[in-house]
Amino acid sequence: MNQSNKAKITLVGAGPGDKDLITVKGLRAIQDANVILYDALVSTDLLEEANDDAIKLFVGKRAGVPCKKQEEINLLLVQSAYEYGHAVRLKGGDPFVFGRGHEEKEYAESFGIPVEVIPGITSAISLPLLQGVAVTRRGISESFWVLTGSTKEHQLSNDIRLAAQSSATLVILMGIRKLAIIRDVLMAEGKADLPIMIIQSGSTVDEKCVVSTVEEILEKAKYENIGTPGIIVAGAVVSTHPEFIKEKARSSWSL
Amino acid sequence: MNQSNKAKITLVGAGPGDKDLITVKGLRAIQDANVILYDALVSTDLLEEANDDAIKLFVGKRAGVPCKKQEEINLLLVQSAYEYGHAVRLKGGDPFVFGRGHEEKEYAESFGIPVEVIPGITSAISLPLLQGVAVTRRGISESFWVLTGSTKEHQLSNDIRLAAQSSATLVILMGIRKLAIIRDVLMAEGKADLPIMIIQSGSTVDEKCVVSTVEEILEKAKYENIGTPGIIVAGAVVSTHPEFIKEKARSSWSL
Repeated sequence: MNQSNKAKITLVGAGPGDKDLITVKGLRAIQDANVILYDALVSTDLLEEANDDAIKLFVGKRAGVPCKKQEEINLLLVQSAYEYGHAVRLKGGDPFVFGRGHEEKEYAESFGIPVEVIPGITSAISLPLLQGVAVTRRGISESFWVLTGSTKEHQLSNDIRLAAQSSATLVILMGIRKLAIIRDVLMAEGKADLPIMIIQSGSTVDEKCVVSTVEEILEKAKYENIGTPGIIVAGAVVSTHPEFIKEKARSSWSL
Repeated sequence: MNQSNKAKITLVGAGPGDKDLITVKGLRAIQDANVILYDALVSTDLLEEANDDAIKLFVGKRAGVPCKKQEEINLLLVQSAYEYGHAVRLKGGDPFVFGRGHEEKEYAESFGIPVEVIPGITSAISLPLLQGVAVTRRGISESFWVLTGSTKEHQLSNDIRLAAQSSATLVILMGIRKLAIIRDVLMAEGKADLPIMIIQSGSTVDEKCVVSTVEEILEKAKYENIGTPGIIVAGAVVSTHPEFIKEKARSSWSL
């Protein structure tokens, strides 16, 4: 192994889907990589930015089932860096927002391999924004709370109950499969009329968005055949979505 | 005015400070701009990426005092687009996280000017990360809550009290001047020992970071002469900061 191939790892956030929403620094890391380990949520267009002779390894989920365990990915990442030099670990969104990036970082560092971290645009903020909804808005929402629908124990975070009492905009990642429970928690806090939206495959050509109220969201998501991957956003700011405004206009007209 | 100079506006998030943490798409907008309106938090290195003949207008704060009111910025943005063509509004972090980006967008759209939005890396997530602290961490923190220290009424968000009861990682933007109140709210919830950090001028050469417990943070921030701009992060994940680990090692040694 020559000096230029010295083992090093860069953990890169690929952003929410659109390949041009990666950072300049992240793109440079891809262009410099000898090997890239990438997830299902990463745009394949980004991989085309790599050197022709860079090795590309898919380590994501296929049909919702991880093709590799986290421990296997950790090991493969370290092996790749030792074997090829600069290994880039490319993860959708931001690698440290429910991303287990720290586990990969610490494992690699335990071998003395230097690890650089390059943040990515998290889908939690950017996907609502690209739909026209800012997660905070002066006079409407003064805070936002980002939760996971799938904790270590594959449960909905307990914080959801407290979150439902707050006036924060709630953003729930990996929560599509828990939609019915999320709706129940919000209904129990008297938030039947709270605007809520689901964004599936955000910022890609397959993007789908459903806007509704908490009360009606299950029905509407079913009608629109919503599936994973997707994020859920609940809060007064969702009322600023163009579809919500149209929907309101329609219902007042039909009265 | 020729066709290539047709009025249009792009709202761009510049990211947390480091110029290479802007998105590829955001950088392209800067390179294409005829005029750029920029904030104090934007790296001036980024402005050098613009065309030599692009006009650069500073509309941020000087010594904490806005040099222009929001209404003046809105008007200037529209005038700039009409006069020069492509106007880029460049804002620190993400333009829609407490950024008043929507006010600029809606004002411009009311004139029929097309507005594109390009998200930026928010300092709320990336600055802790660049300090080695992920805002979420499997088994430690299952959610994070981003609040502002300065609402419309220049008050601390009311949600802070509810947030203090949760197990979420709290990230407070524009809250340095409210540090004493934030500490009081957390102390009242029995969180004296909760790890807390302040990052000033994050991801720039002037970056400063103080790590402590809620109980001791005021004293430590004073000792380190912490000022604005800065963000506050409170939560169990802060215990993973290298300084916190060292500090703990020191105190057990001195027992």
